[in-house]
Amino acid sequence: MTDPRLTPLAASLPSTVPFVGPEAQERARGAPFIARLGANESNFGSSPRALEAMAAADIWNYGDPENFDLRAALAAHLKVDTANIMVGEGIDGLLGYIVRLFVGPGDHVVTSDGAYPTFNYHVAGYGGTLHKVPYVDDHEDPGALFAKARETGAKLVYLANPDNPMGTWHSGATLSRALDDLPAGNLLVLDEAYIECAPSGTTPDIPADDPRVIRLRTFSKVYGMAGARVGYAIGAPAVIDAFNKVRNHFGMNRAAQAGALAALADQPYLRTVLDQIDAARARIAQIARANGLTPLPSATNFMAIDCGGDGVFARAVLDGLIARGIFVRMPFAAPQNRCIRISCGTSADLDAFAKALPGAITDARGG
Amino acid sequence: MTDPRLTPLAASLPSTVPFVGPEAQERARGAPFIARLGANESNFGSSPRALEAMAAADIWNYGDPENFDLRAALAAHLKVDTANIMVGEGIDGLLGYIVRLFVGPGDHVVTSDGAYPTFNYHVAGYGGTLHKVPYVDDHEDPGALFAKARETGAKLVYLANPDNPMGTWHSGATLSRALDDLPAGNLLVLDEAYIECAPSGTTPDIPADDPRVIRLRTFSKVYGMAGARVGYAIGAPAVIDAFNKVRNHFGMNRAAQAGALAALADQPYLRTVLDQIDAARARIAQIARANGLTPLPSATNFMAIDCGGDGVFARAVLDGLIARGIFVRMPFAAPQNRCIRISCGTSADLDAFAKALPGAITDARGG
Repeated sequence: MTDPRLTPLAASLPSTVPFVGPEAQERARGAPFIARLGANESNFGSSPRALEAMAAADIWNYGDPENFDLRAALAAHLKVDTANIMVGEGIDGLLGYIVRLFVGPGDHVVTSDGAYPTFNYHVAGYGGTLHKVPYVDDHEDPGALFAKARETGAKLVYLANPDNPMGTWHSGATLSRALDDLPAGNLLVLDEAYIECAPSGTTPDIPADDPRVIRLRTFSKVYGMAGARVGYAIGAPAVIDAFNKVRNHFGMNRAAQAGALAALADQPYLRTVLDQIDAARARIAQIARANGLTPLPSATNFMAIDCGGDGVFARAVLDGLIARGIFVRMPFAAPQNRCIRISCGTSADLDAFAKALPGAITDARGG
Repeated sequence: MTDPRLTPLAASLPSTVPFVGPEAQERARGAPFIARLGANESNFGSSPRALEAMAAADIWNYGDPENFDLRAALAAHLKVDTANIMVGEGIDGLLGYIVRLFVGPGDHVVTSDGAYPTFNYHVAGYGGTLHKVPYVDDHEDPGALFAKARETGAKLVYLANPDNPMGTWHSGATLSRALDDLPAGNLLVLDEAYIECAPSGTTPDIPADDPRVIRLRTFSKVYGMAGARVGYAIGAPAVIDAFNKVRNHFGMNRAAQAGALAALADQPYLRTVLDQIDAARARIAQIARANGLTPLPSATNFMAIDCGGDGVFARAVLDGLIARGIFVRMPFAAPQNRCIRISCGTSADLDAFAKALPGAITDARGG
């Protein structure tokens, strides 16, 4: 048997997954999790109207490859032109297309050390060279990112605002000022997956036509439709249209298209979710403090909790939570990996977390 | 404003779509189609159990990135190992991954002139060089395909059995014999999207571990779930595992995973669909003959109808059908483009087709 004749690039890539799913962990432990607080899904569910729309979709039909209705609705909602909007298979899918369009062997890309690993996965997958700058005080550092882009001649810079996994954020004004230092010809990939939970003023006030930036948003977080796989990009028409060169035109699930349209129209439901996120953040902070840990401020639907030790200690706390049936994740890179990351959950979810945490800490301290 | 700094390959690609969707045509004509008979969707719908499973899915959760349950069920159904199965975002998505893994600039690929355009789209998208061999008597020609592969040193050969858009097929025995001539190191991409409607014996009797072949199947056709975007590949473990290097690990819709699992389990429903396809093929043939046209034999859920003229005439017939609210498509390449292609539909769909066809023919003949 001969090995498959992969391209040299493909042959060089590992068969890895950016994240192990909770289902794989459940199979390994032989029991379901009690609370699912690790993937920043929305435990408050999705709009009943979105569920109705998904159930009513004619799933025997392919979806509209132009995503016309959803793009038009998003454009109206955001007060931009339809030509500024691309819809794709979640932010993960859109990141893959962006990297494919801009990055090949020999091209440079900049991100933060400990930022979203799936972006890094795509950069490696297309043969790009990734440069990482450190977080500063648990914040991504736009100045350092853009300076590194200038130094390396990078084509893309990735920045999430608010940040994942730390939950921290910069004001839109800070980002707008920093953008003045973005080298010409560089494209800022601004991941705004959590923007709906952030304080007003977190979105930079730049026009959708600004060719320096492409923004990414999603129905996976506050809209409660992670399993539907609907993300969208906002950018200059020339960048948006480039997706049509490479995307899987019939890749969108038809029910997901209809569900996202209905979810977007149900802003009252979204507001109830944001209220529940507020309450859950307060509760997570209270639980952390009651256990002698330090919650970080958050503009997202999750909170990072500083466990007060190093990455080994935080990992031990996390392992203790997993062993007690609480699915959580943690940052990958030091010093952020002194934290664990807890998604906002229902009262029952957070009751389970509160019950499990003391034992997990005790175990981590060696009993 | 500077142009986006796309890779040279991306810059060279057009912003085209392999197929215009029926929704775009409906927007252009300002009215919905009366019958949707152009995309080989299953007008007989999907299993009620699949619909229930999709509605019951926790869409706020990401899908299992390993597609564990669906892969295991497919493996059991096909009597192969789970390591022989990869699940992806429809055959279109899987084709994209396969081309990405195997084809880069300078690599050669072989297909038939007039075969599935989305495969060609992916080959162009990754910079491969495509070679086309003609159909023979409306059949793809395995001998010519494999000879061209040998001549060009191609890495991939694409072959659909049964064929789309003609509906013709080869026996599995014919394919197995032809495989002896496949050059070493070449991978046959065997698209079996329509295999469930084909006569028994159409599947070549080769083991799933055979490294020369990767087979592609789908829930979009007879299972009636085109909008869900679930396809799967059957192949040697080394080829299957390579998908993990590049795929969008969290790309599958969670409801679609559950729906496909339920649809696979509901084989009685599938048999009722196959009976309806049989009846619809007979009816389409009867309508064609009643209008002086010639239906081609079909092993799929559609039929090609020879309009008795050239491509211009068939296009005129097709345009007349579209104008009368009947969504159909036709082959792209001569001489197959003397035909139009009609998907199997319900009695009401085919009544509408029967009603529209005489006028479309009259118009095409210049009235």
